[in-house]
Order: sequence, then C-alpha cells, then structure tokens
Amino acid sequence: MLKYQQIAEEIETYIEEHELQQGDKLPVLATLMDQFEASKSTVTKSLDLLEKKGVIFQVRGSGIFVRRQKRKGYISLLSNQGFKKDLDEFQLTSDVIELDIRKPTAEAARNLNLEVDDKVYYVKRVRYINGETLCLEESFFNKAYVTYLNREIVSESIFHYIQEGLGLKIGFSDMYLHVDRLTEEEAGYLGLEAGAPKLDVETVFHLTNGQPFDFSVVTYNYEQSQFFLQANSHFQ
Amino acid sequence: MLKYQQIAEEIETYIEEHELQQGDKLPVLATLMDQFEASKSTVTKSLDLLEKKGVIFQVRGSGIFVRRQKRKGYISLLSNQGFKKDLDEFQLTSDVIELDIRKPTAEAARNLNLEVDDKVYYVKRVRYINGETLCLEESFFNKAYVTYLNREIVSESIFHYIQEGLGLKIGFSDMYLHVDRLTEEEAGYLGLEAGAPKLDVETVFHLTNGQPFDFSVVTYNYEQSQFFLQANSHFQ
Repeated sequence: MLKYQQIAEEIETYIEEHELQQGDKLPVLATLMDQFEASKSTVTKSLDLLEKKGVIFQVRGSGIFVRRQKRKGYISLLSNQGFKKDLDEFQLTSDVIELDIRKPTAEAARNLNLEVDDKVYYVKRVRYINGETLCLEESFFNKAYVTYLNREIVSESIFHYIQEGLGLKIGFSDMYLHVDRLTEEEAGYLGLEAGAPKLDVETVFHLTNGQPFDFSVVTYNYEQSQFFLQANSHFQ
Repeated sequence: MLKYQQIAEEIETYIEEHELQQGDKLPVLATLMDQFEASKSTVTKSLDLLEKKGVIFQVRGSGIFVRRQKRKGYISLLSNQGFKKDLDEFQLTSDVIELDIRKPTAEAARNLNLEVDDKVYYVKRVRYINGETLCLEESFFNKAYVTYLNREIVSESIFHYIQEGLGLKIGFSDMYLHVDRLTEEEAGYLGLEAGAPKLDVETVFHLTNGQPFDFSVVTYNYEQSQFFLQANSHFQ
C-alpha cells in the first residue's frame, strides 16, 4: 500500500471510529500534512481518493467535509462485489451450487472478449444476508486471468482472493440493471414465487489494464434488497 | 468553463464523432499538450475528469484508452437527472401533473435538512421515453436555493435551468434504490397493472457546498427501464 493510500485509510478509519456525520469539518490541508508528515501532493492525493470513494467532499476556499449517508441497512451497489468489507454490518453467507471449468456462453464470451472455445471458471452461488436469501449469482471468470478457484475460495470473497492470492489489479466495471419478474428456477433458489419482482444486475469487471476478467449476472430477492449509490458531480 | 474542462469536452466530442471503441488508444500526454497548447497539469486535470466521467481509462506506463460501453438503449443511472444530454439517443417528454410551493413532507424535510415549516417547490411529473411511460417523478426543491420554477421550466430540464438560469453548482448525490410492486396510483400513471414490478429511486442532490437542494422519488416503469452504471475502481 502506498503512503497516500495509507493516509486515506487512516482518515477513513478516524471518521468511522469517531462517528463523524455528513458536513462535519476535517482539519485543513496544512494540519493533515503535519499530522501525517507528508507532502502537500501526497495528502492531496489521499483526499482525492477519499472524495472518489464518497467519504469526503471538498469545498474550494472552505474546507474538507465528511460525506456520509444517513440510512442504515442499504447495500452499496458499487462495492457489493468487493462485498465483505463494505457489508460488515450484515451477516453474509454463500451456498455454492456449481463450480467448474467450461466454455463460456455466447453472452459471457461477448462480454469477456472471448472466443466460444476459450475457457472460463463458472460459479453459481446463492448468497444469504442475515439468514435470508439475498441473491442468485452466476459468474464467468476468464481462466487466462483467474487461473485457479476452488470451493473454499468461492464460499468466501472471490475478489479478495483474486487480489491477494492471484495479485490481479481490479479496475473499472460496467453494470447493467433491469427490473423484471422471477422465473420459476430463480424463484426456487430465492424462496419466492415465480413472477415476483426481481432486480437483475449484470456486471463486467475489468482489470486496471482494461481487460475484462469477470462477467456476472446477479438476481436479487427484492424483499431483501435496498441499494445505496453515491454519485460525484459530473459537472465539475 | 475552465480550460481543462474545455479540453475534456473536446476530447470527449472527438471520441464520439470518430466512434472510437473501448480499448482504442488516445495520443500520449505530450501530444495532447502540444495539440491543446496546454501545460502538463492542465491536460492531466482534463484526463482525470474524463476518467471520473467514465470516458477514458489510464494505464500507468501504457497509455490512455477509450472507455465505452457496448450496449445501446440503456439509461445512465448516475446522469439521468441531468437527463437531456445523456439521453440524446432517446425521445423524452414530460407531463407536469402538479407544480406548487408547499411545506415539505416529513421525509422530504429530513432528506433536505429542513424544518417542516420551511418551503419547497413540489413537482410531480410523468416522463415518457419514445412515447411510452418511463417514470413517475416527485421532486422537492428547497426554495431557499431553487427560488423560482414555472410550468415551462419543469416541462424541460429542471437541472439545466438550475445551473444556467439560477447559477447553482450541482455537486454530489446520494441514491437509494428499492424494487417493489406498483401501488394502484403509480400503476395508473404508468399505464401498468397494480402489483407489477417497479424500481424506486430516491435521490438527494447536493450543491458543491454540500447543501442538499433536491429530494426526488422516481418510480420507473420496469418494462421501459434498463440502466447502465459505470464504476471506477475503489481499490486504487
């Protein structure tokens, strides 16, 4: 972890531990530079990272302020694949239904820039939140990048393993959301009746070099799902 | 518009007009500096803005690349209140159902940090996409900031007016999503049957100084709604 990332993490921890609220003012740049014994450019980088993550907002000529949503019990839509850390307040478990190496579906191949003869790890899981079904998840990992998976890994956080175990650098992702009605099969896994509302989220995850490595299709139980999303200004 | 914003806009226009695809490489920093007769720090700021907007991605030691989703017909979830520009490919219209000045509901007051005796502009609209109902929208604007609205303005882009007409600077927003079933009233406005799936999106929009100025509740017709969302890495 680089110094600016470390500083960002310390500031974030400070905000959490002291239960600072949205609008609370943080020390000025010069004070932070002293406190962390860091240069202006390093602290600025930390603050930009925290702003990108939606932890603070900076008002020119006025200061640095805490950004914090007020509602509890919402799942972060953008970081819910990173899962574990952002969902510490929830109890999450997974049932692995299937795990194997296979050829991608045409849809997965298209989203992963693969040929239909290439190989993917296919993972199908039901995820539970506080003991209730949260979602049915099907993921296709390009085997050229995600070279190994096993049942133990996919019972826990796959993304944690991909970063820490395989050393891959996860970059941006594209998400596609639809609302529709549950099919018989989906309803069975989620313990709901067919035809009930559902949210489908398809995500293409890329490495920092721009290569897509994971295409996932997640079907959420609408009764358990409330999502939270922070947007930064596009107008700046 | 500042110089770095202008450069960002020109690069974005270039990408669109030349129909560049995801992964296409842009000129290196030095070339862009020459081309725009701008300093390194200005061009870097332009590129950071474009990265934040999801228009490009930068790979250290490798270059600057176009980021572009492949799917057509998806509405950008983050910019759909800015609407018009991002939805140029769609034909959008609005029916204004109600527009008046009133006291906020308890919920709106809480989200806008108002007292229940303060004043808001209340706007209720049905929005149409290519002639079909897209959503039912109720918005509460803090009248201390959004000092004036009329039927003509709310038939068009309210946000465009807020920025250009009132000179307010729109900052970050917090969004809350739920999937549920349509009530009788909502179903009536959307031309669907009660109990059909719906996506509810509540958004609190803030000015760049951190003050919330708009709380909106949008109920989407699930048959017309497919949303797109770009996420940048939180792991950097």
